[in-house]
Amino acid sequence: LLSTSTIAAQKNALVFLTDFGTRDGAVAAMKGVAYGVDSSLPMFDLTHEIQPFNIWEAAYRLYQTASFWPAGTVFVTVVDPGVGSNRRSVVLKSKSGHFFVGPDNGIFTLIAEQLGIEEIRDIDSRLNRMKGNEQSHTFDGRDLFVYVSARLAAGRMDLSEVGPESLNTVFSIPYQKATIDSGSIYGAIPVLDVQFGNVWTNIPGDMIRRIGIEKGDRLCIQIYYRGAEKYSGEIPFVNSFSDVPVGRPLAYVNSLINIGLALNRGSFADKHHIGAGADWKVVLTKCRPAGKKN
Amino acid sequence: LLSTSTIAAQKNALVFLTDFGTRDGAVAAMKGVAYGVDSSLPMFDLTHEIQPFNIWEAAYRLYQTASFWPAGTVFVTVVDPGVGSNRRSVVLKSKSGHFFVGPDNGIFTLIAEQLGIEEIRDIDSRLNRMKGNEQSHTFDGRDLFVYVSARLAAGRMDLSEVGPESLNTVFSIPYQKATIDSGSIYGAIPVLDVQFGNVWTNIPGDMIRRIGIEKGDRLCIQIYYRGAEKYSGEIPFVNSFSDVPVGRPLAYVNSLINIGLALNRGSFADKHHIGAGADWKVVLTKCRPAGKKN
Amino acid sequence: LLSTSTIAAQKNALVFLTDFGTRDGAVAAMKGVAYGVDSSLPMFDLTHEIQPFNIWEAAYRLYQTASFWPAGTVFVTVVDPGVGSNRRSVVLKSKSGHFFVGPDNGIFTLIAEQLGIEEIRDIDSRLNRMKGNEQSHTFDGRDLFVYVSARLAAGRMDLSEVGPESLNTVFSIPYQKATIDSGSIYGAIPVLDVQFGNVWTNIPGDMIRRIGIEKGDRLCIQIYYRGAEKYSGEIPFVNSFSDVPVGRPLAYVNSLINIGLALNRGSFADKHHIGAGADWKVVLTKCRPAGKKN
Repeated sequence: LLSTSTIAAQKNALVFLTDFGTRDGAVAAMKGVAYGVDSSLPMFDLTHEIQPFNIWEAAYRLYQTASFWPAGTVFVTVVDPGVGSNRRSVVLKSKSGHFFVGPDNGIFTLIAEQLGIEEIRDIDSRLNRMKGNEQSHTFDGRDLFVYVSARLAAGRMDLSEVGPESLNTVFSIPYQKATIDSGSIYGAIPVLDVQFGNVWTNIPGDMIRRIGIEKGDRLCIQIYYRGAEKYSGEIPFVNSFSDVPVGRPLAYVNSLINIGLALNRGSFADKHHIGAGADWKVVLTKCRPAGKKN
Repeated sequence: LLSTSTIAAQKNALVFLTDFGTRDGAVAAMKGVAYGVDSSLPMFDLTHEIQPFNIWEAAYRLYQTASFWPAGTVFVTVVDPGVGSNRRSVVLKSKSGHFFVGPDNGIFTLIAEQLGIEEIRDIDSRLNRMKGNEQSHTFDGRDLFVYVSARLAAGRMDLSEVGPESLNTVFSIPYQKATIDSGSIYGAIPVLDVQFGNVWTNIPGDMIRRIGIEKGDRLCIQIYYRGAEKYSGEIPFVNSFSDVPVGRPLAYVNSLINIGLALNRGSFADKHHIGAGADWKVVLTKCRPAGKKN
Repeated sequence: LLSTSTIAAQKNALVFLTDFGTRDGAVAAMKGVAYGVDSSLPMFDLTHEIQPFNIWEAAYRLYQTASFWPAGTVFVTVVDPGVGSNRRSVVLKSKSGHFFVGPDNGIFTLIAEQLGIEEIRDIDSRLNRMKGNEQSHTFDGRDLFVYVSARLAAGRMDLSEVGPESLNTVFSIPYQKATIDSGSIYGAIPVLDVQFGNVWTNIPGDMIRRIGIEKGDRLCIQIYYRGAEKYSGEIPFVNSFSDVPVGRPLAYVNSLINIGLALNRGSFADKHHIGAGADWKVVLTKCRPAGKKN
């Protein structure tokens, strides 16, 4: 009994991230496999509504959430357009002690930078593919990844049993890092705060002070899509939405401590037709005292 | 061991209600914080698909569900357009023994009436804000509300530790109560049964008997939007959808024991362009024996 | 303590399948009832996004997932346009040891064939309807089905307490079984892989070998809607999506070991306007060596 309770206390959470949607049975089949491995495993959803095949978006959602889960949490991440090919399947253990299981197709780009790579194992599918589904070649999420993930989370398998250790690098999707040049900050719009239409940049909140901006100052902002200016405006840098009148724009430090752009109770992205991804760039400058646009 | 098991048995459910959607990582970040507080906490979703900023809709969803959960359940409710302002943050304990945590912006309007207020505490954010996110001012759901809620549900904090006790009133959104006048019942359409297009009123099933209506009688019904008639018809009052032919209208006692209007296997709301909210009113009268419309 | 732990270890999962959507409180009310029955019951969602009243789709989602859950799992299935009528309410125990609870309206068509029927009980609603909601006639999911399901899953009720045993047959929706005739396979398109637009047939992967098809061969395929040809083409039979160039079609053995049709990183269903259901038929033939279309 004691040992049972002790084991129970050591279960780690299994968190699911896919582009499967929740209209069919794919996610439930994966959870059934995990439940069959260990019926006391705590399971949670990050999201299943990644745009199909949008690896970058999935990478960002890991970055957005993993650090809020305790060490030991296992993220099973299945955005996998290359399923059935010879693309690499891995378990990544971060320096923070989190585990990430999935295809090495770029989905770990941001988490590797944010949390650091402690160890990577190539999944040996001969040892780790669930028995009985040998004819299935299109659902590694169910047949391989969740089966590995559940056993890791439940403490029924060590990282060493996953497969051979390999180089501590992952396939990384290139993107524009935030940089300062001549008093301006250059950055990217990696993602939108989709539910509310806020525009999230990858510019750290701290960086903005280095070009002399304090709360209450005004920022001059340009947004470019493939080099073409899509927005130019002057926006106050404040704490939160309600610091400006309803419908007015604001720049703020978002919940990931990066700079965001929003309208109070409106959608900045919709109003100004702003999107997200590698093709979207942003430039921030402290507005000149006269307050006129650049 | 004994005490661990005892604690485990005393965990209360934590139920999430937000307008965040499930396309990004916001809900998962909140759940990660709660899981970090107590890995054995049972967590459930009420819904995350409240229309952004629609406080009234969230208030109704609490009313629709809270009483089906046992006393001790903690509802963390984050529809919070005023985040970052000085709007009040509270924990409401109902007379029924449920806990509601969130902004006092009207979201507790209906639950306060339905379940009664036992005690309200203002959340002292200096004591209760999660460490490490001091720069974040736009995600109290993650940084404050769920952190308080998880510790309450897990029995790791008493209500008295939330902050000072305050007046037992909440900010209430005004709405048309159901009333009888000269043989007619006047009420509101607080919400739609969105998935099926049924129209839900706030008229209690019992009230309809007081104007002489029994099952099998016909109701004369008008629906108004901002005073303009949008629907007028005569509808039988029956038990359930299948008591009328497919496509035909019915009035019935819905699952909250209020009067609803529906089409059997159709959408009353779509067919007659009916919406819900403070601007929608309904009048019910017993049809005259001739059965002609008013 | 021992007995408590033992009971805890014997809890079975409760899996929800409905057409309620997740925008309102219906699912959360059901889960509250189940949690009130037993606070340690593990609960999971299959899907709540069945098209309203689409019993066939629900039947398929059970078929897609149930076998991946361990014996003892209880599926509460509420796609129930006949709620409030005298349609039969049942608990079906399969030969595989799974339990299915819901209206006998066709929703168990496929699971009965796939897993076999061990025993069926008619639910005696006088014994099993939750107290306090006697006025409610439109939400058996909450008032009856989940209340029965939760007690079964928690081991608080035996199958014998559900109600009288009845004939081991369910109401079955007719559909085109997969058959071979003169070297062609005739089958149906029961469902789409909705998120990705793949077309799933009910033709077993094994059957295709019986008309002489091996991996790498080309299949000649026609799809008919109500007898009218909607698609005719020649498609290679391969293992997985990435075995053909991006945008190109493939035939493959899907995750249920049936034949599927897809475009690599595209939507076969959208491109060729293919749907699913009883009106959709498919014919597969080995292409003649010349490779020209039939």
